[in-house]
Formats: sequence, C-alpha cells, structure tokens
Amino acid sequence: MNAAIITIGDEILIGQVVDTNSAWLGQQLTDIGISVKKTWSVSDSHEEIILAIRQAVDEADIVFMTGGLGPTKDDITKKALADIAGVGLYFHDETFERIKTMFARLGRPMSPHHNDQCLMPQGAEILRNSMGTAPGMLVKVCNKRIISMPGVPYEMKAIMQEVVLPMLSNDSGLQIVHHTILTCGAGETTIENEISDIVSTMPDNIGIAYLPAIGQVRLRLTAKGKKDQNLIQQVEKFVTKIQLKIPDIIYGYGDSTLPYELQKICISKGITLSTAESCTGGNIAAKIVAVPGSSACFTGSIVAYSNQIKIKTLSVKPKTLETFGAVSEETVKEMVDGVLLLFGTEVAVAVSGIAGPDGGSHEKPVGTIWICVGNKTNKSTFLLKSGKDRSNNIEAASVYAMIQLRKFILEQY
Amino acid sequence: MNAAIITIGDEILIGQVVDTNSAWLGQQLTDIGISVKKTWSVSDSHEEIILAIRQAVDEADIVFMTGGLGPTKDDITKKALADIAGVGLYFHDETFERIKTMFARLGRPMSPHHNDQCLMPQGAEILRNSMGTAPGMLVKVCNKRIISMPGVPYEMKAIMQEVVLPMLSNDSGLQIVHHTILTCGAGETTIENEISDIVSTMPDNIGIAYLPAIGQVRLRLTAKGKKDQNLIQQVEKFVTKIQLKIPDIIYGYGDSTLPYELQKICISKGITLSTAESCTGGNIAAKIVAVPGSSACFTGSIVAYSNQIKIKTLSVKPKTLETFGAVSEETVKEMVDGVLLLFGTEVAVAVSGIAGPDGGSHEKPVGTIWICVGNKTNKSTFLLKSGKDRSNNIEAASVYAMIQLRKFILEQY
Repeated sequence: MNAAIITIGDEILIGQVVDTNSAWLGQQLTDIGISVKKTWSVSDSHEEIILAIRQAVDEADIVFMTGGLGPTKDDITKKALADIAGVGLYFHDETFERIKTMFARLGRPMSPHHNDQCLMPQGAEILRNSMGTAPGMLVKVCNKRIISMPGVPYEMKAIMQEVVLPMLSNDSGLQIVHHTILTCGAGETTIENEISDIVSTMPDNIGIAYLPAIGQVRLRLTAKGKKDQNLIQQVEKFVTKIQLKIPDIIYGYGDSTLPYELQKICISKGITLSTAESCTGGNIAAKIVAVPGSSACFTGSIVAYSNQIKIKTLSVKPKTLETFGAVSEETVKEMVDGVLLLFGTEVAVAVSGIAGPDGGSHEKPVGTIWICVGNKTNKSTFLLKSGKDRSNNIEAASVYAMIQLRKFILEQY
Repeated sequence: MNAAIITIGDEILIGQVVDTNSAWLGQQLTDIGISVKKTWSVSDSHEEIILAIRQAVDEADIVFMTGGLGPTKDDITKKALADIAGVGLYFHDETFERIKTMFARLGRPMSPHHNDQCLMPQGAEILRNSMGTAPGMLVKVCNKRIISMPGVPYEMKAIMQEVVLPMLSNDSGLQIVHHTILTCGAGETTIENEISDIVSTMPDNIGIAYLPAIGQVRLRLTAKGKKDQNLIQQVEKFVTKIQLKIPDIIYGYGDSTLPYELQKICISKGITLSTAESCTGGNIAAKIVAVPGSSACFTGSIVAYSNQIKIKTLSVKPKTLETFGAVSEETVKEMVDGVLLLFGTEVAVAVSGIAGPDGGSHEKPVGTIWICVGNKTNKSTFLLKSGKDRSNNIEAASVYAMIQLRKFILEQY
C-alpha cells in the first residue's frame, strides 16, 4: 500500500513555516510498511485543495492531509472534502460536547467559531483529537481513504498515534522493520570503519544508514520483507554483532535520547545530579528536566552567567578567575566543587565557554568550551573546540556535558 | 508569475530528512514577487520525476527542482529532464575543467563519477555551482523554464543567490510584500475580534493570516500588486492602524523573537534579570542566553527542582511549602525574593508548576503553573492553566514567564 501526503497552508508555501508534518508522517507510515509515494504542499485555496486531492486519490492508495482546519483557515479543508465527496455538512454533537467540557475545565468561554468546528462532512468518520478542538476525519472518495487532520503538529501526532496508526498497522501485506542504535562520542567515519566487516555481510534486504547529529551518530538498520518473514530476528542478529564491536559508544536504542538514558543510569545507580552552567545558560538542566520523572535524580542547577555570581553562589575563587579566566579548566573544576557543596548531589557537571559571536580571543577563540564532571573525590575535565555559531556551540556543550556525565558515572559507579 | 517547487529524494519521503529547501525557496521567491503555488516531494524514480514535472509545468509558470543530481542519485533528474525535453546528453567541458581545478586545489583525485556529472541535457543552460561539483541547469519545456539544482542546501542556495535570483528579479511584473506583527498574551480569536473593523476595510489585494504558537500569535499581512505600486506604504498604513488598536500585546515585527525583544527592553532600560525555575528546569534562562549579547542584562538562574534546594538556595520558608505547597502563589513570590537577594538583579521571574505526566491532584491538576515577576517593591503573579503534555507545559510556562517579564518591565520602568 502506498500513500500521498498533502499539507495545506500559505505559510508553508511562502516559507514562513517549514513543513515538518510530512517528514513525521513519512517516518510513521514507513514504519508500518506503507510507502509514501509523493507529498504536496498547497495553498489555503478551495480550488487547489480539490485539485491536489484529485491527483492524490488518482496516484496513491490512501491520502493524508494536514492543515486547513480551524476558524482562521475558514475550515477550508472540510468544505473541499465535502464537495469532492458530494455531500453536505452536519453538526457533530459529540465534538461539541468534547469542546464544551475542554473549555469548562480551562475556565474559558467557547466562541461561536467553535460551533463551526463541530460541522463535519456527511458520512465522515470522526477521528478524536485529544490535544485540541478540531477533530480529524476520514472520508472515502473513489473508494480510497482520505484522512484529514489539523496542521498543529502535536494535535496531528496525537490523532495519528491514538487513532490512525493502530487502524492502519494491520492493513498492508508487507513489513519494514527499523532498528536504531544510538551512539555518542565517536564520528560517523570512525564508526563506519569499525563495523565495516559486519556491514559487508548483511543480506540485500537489510540496509544501514548513518545519521549524524552534534556529538552523536544514529545507526539505523532497515529490513524489508513480507509480513510472515521474521525480520525482527534477522535485524537483531546484526544489532548484536554491532553491540559487541562498539559497546563503549552505544548509549541506547530506538527513539531514546541521551537525557533519558542518563536519567535511567542515575536512577538505577541511585545517583543525584546537579549542574553549574555558564555559557549553556541552563540548557543542560532544561534537557534533563524535559524527561518525565527527572525529579528522582535531578536536584537543580546554578546558572552563573556572570563572574560575580560564579564567586558568590559557586564559591569560585576570584584569584582563579583572575589568573586563568572564566573559561578555563581550573574554573570549571571549582564550579563543580561549588555546586556539589551547595546542592549536596553525588555528581555534578560544570560548563564554561565562549558561545560567541563575540568574546573570543586568539588564545581562546569562540567555541572554546571547558567541561568538568566530578564527585567529592574525582574529577574529569574535557576541552571542546566547537565552531563559530552560538546556538551550535550551546547545543554541542550541552550534549558533550551529558556524554561526559554518562561516561563518568559508568566508570566510577 | 507563479512557481512550483519539486524536491526529489527517498530520504524526504521516508521522513529521514525534513525538506527545508522548499521553505527557503518559498521565502526567496516570495521576496521577489513570485508566488509559490504548490510544492511536491517525489521519490528518486524516473517515472515519478517525469510525472511531477509534467504536472508542475501544467500548473505553474516556472518550476524549481532540487535533488536527484550527483553520483549516489545516479543523476536521475538530469535523465528525466533530457527525456521530457526530448534531447540527449552531452559532455560539458567547462564543468569538467571546474571540477578538475576544484579537486587539484583540495589535493584529492577525481573519481569516474565526476565524469558523469559533466553530462548535460542538450540545450540546457548551465548554472554555476560555486559550492560543489554538480552544477544546476535551466531547461525549457513547453516554453516554461525548469531550474534544476542539487539537493544539498548550501549548494542550492549558492546557485540561487549567485545565478538564479539575479536573473529572475527583473522578470516578473508583480511584487508581493509581507509584514508580520508579533503578539503575545492574547488568543487568535480575541485578536481577530479586536481588529475586525480594520481588517474589513482592507482592499482585495491585502490579506491577513493569524499564525498561532504557544502564548503567541503572529499576524501576517500580505499585499500583492504591480511592481510600480507602493505596496510597502499601503501595508504599513494597516500595520499602523493595528498598532494603535492593540499596542499592549504587540512585542515585535518580522523575524524577531520574544527573548530578543525582552533583551532589547532590558538593555534600553538598564535592567538586569535573573530567574528562579522549578518546573521549567532552566528553560527560561536557556532561551534568554540563546540570544547573543545576553550577558549585558542576564546574570543567572537558580534551578531549584527540589523543595530542599528551594529552601537552601532561595530561602523559601519551609512553612510556606508545607502550608501552600511548592506550586503556589506564595512559593513563587518567595522564590522571586530569594533570587533577587542572591543575584542582586533589578527584576526576577520565578516559576513553579506541575509539568506532568505525574504529580497532579484534583485541586492542582497537571498543567497548573504559578509565575511571579517582581522587583524589590512590587510583585505580580499569574496562574497559567496549561494542558497535559509535559513539553508543552514547560514551553508554555517559559513563554508566559517572558510575557509577564516584558509586561512588568514596561509597566514599572
């Protein structure tokens, strides 16, 4: 079975918004063996939407649409769907009750626009939206399914995950299996060389992709075959071989993340964490806290952006700042001592660097970042030489701080 | 003149790569008065590329293609273009010389693949690529121009900026002007009602779009007209009317951001800032620090994730936590006092809430977030009732904290 995706919105065509919905849908559909044949982005125009639907229905087995729902879009997608299916709109009482309850809980009044959101094409199957007011809908045209969802990414994702994907996963005769290995601390080329002997023995129906990000490389193994083949087992055989070859740099699998895996290690070993951040400005703490359940291991952070605050809150010695500068091995070591003392955690990480665009010198150019991880008895320091871009530098410093934290904890506990 | 964009690549359709080329092209073309009518993403398939080109040529005046060039893609776009134009391929000596020089400079050998890159459709105009080996090309089909470029974003951008945009900017007789007003603290529907009398007087060639995000709505005014019309002035007249109608919620214009505008206000008024964060975990500080030059107004932050740390570092009274809980108006007020005292800043913001997914109660459900902004003499508190999603709640709390900070500073200074 193959699919077409139509995303609707002038904001996409003029480039004000990057269409990330298509990529997300592409991943999800590929995972359940539905291959995306084509995607379209069209404007908020009745005529263009109808034309795109006609082409999509003509070329693909199933059509996914996002956007063009809701009051400010004048619910243009709904009208196009009703017209193309040759039906009228009716008032969907259940949706009205759901929106009413939602607003009552928020203590806000409903507006007349929300009444319009309850109008649905006759014969459409309503797809529940647990994250917003406008529901999704499934309409059949020429015996093909068209699934229309709001353009707001988290609403669209909720409808897909809760309603559409479970419905579709049993429909296709083929399967595609992915297995992703998450690595950190080694480059793409290094990893490729390390595992080349394993990759060369993979059969034709298994492929490997190297997906690099700052400080990290994801290895994605993809196997294609029929539903009755045991693809999972086939892929896992190679995953195990890779595990045995590069165990030190693998930190997790699948959709996991470095902060999540860090939390898992801390909780399993009963370790508490704190951070002392200068150039990262709270970004490391924010990444750790973004993971549900972080309060079980994370106590807090001092964002000491100015030297005065480094002295006052983290007890960094004025002499150290004067002699070695705020961006130095000596300073990050004292920052770790300071935050360990203040927060009483088992382990802490400290970062100080020059994020840019200004503040660099010949000796310490923009991108010079010192990281220290430590506990009461041991410390390990790391000099990161990043580039010129401020946001990249902050991200790289945050990722390497977590990589070093993970390494330190695994070595010491 | 209107355009169609075709991006080519299996990696886009399976969602491995988000297509950012279309958005960038959309911006650039809109800026020179070419409106993008539709975008397609298609697979690395000869048949699909030909079908997309046919549809695009049929629907638009000019067609832009990215991807499907280069050795790993088997130069599939070039073959499709030659076939659709009914011509063969020839060896382009200049391109060969350019690649040879490029490799000599890098001290690397040329591979046989690079010979293939010198094959071009007969009659194609070659568009110089200063950033890579595969040049772009312009082919005419049915008297319409098709511009094909590599998919690598910086190569495509170089060809556009150095060759294509200069060529096109004088071609179209029309222009499109955008003006974006950035608002915060009011919902889409409220704003729509507030300015409905202004919008109703707009002429047909000016449109308005409401682009909502968490806590913010961007209003985009778009004017279309002939080159000789003074569209900028025409749009600015309505922008001024909107400014006068809703001055309190407008925080900036164009591509600006809330953290950037907050920094601007602080610096212009000589105000220093600090944050005391619980559920946001450093996210507010990280957003402020992400803006270059933040050290001019931002001193630091205490991320006090545990109650013990709220007591120890921010001097929150144990009695307050016991009586009212960590998520309460009383606690965030004391957090502000604590961080003001510790960091000595003029203004501070504190946030404490239940981000979820766990930790909610009937009285304080997940999404209950208290915010306090204050200085030594005044405090203003705000209760945010957000939803169930942890990352949304953290983002909403961070955005509303900045909105309240901005409001407080403008009112008090």
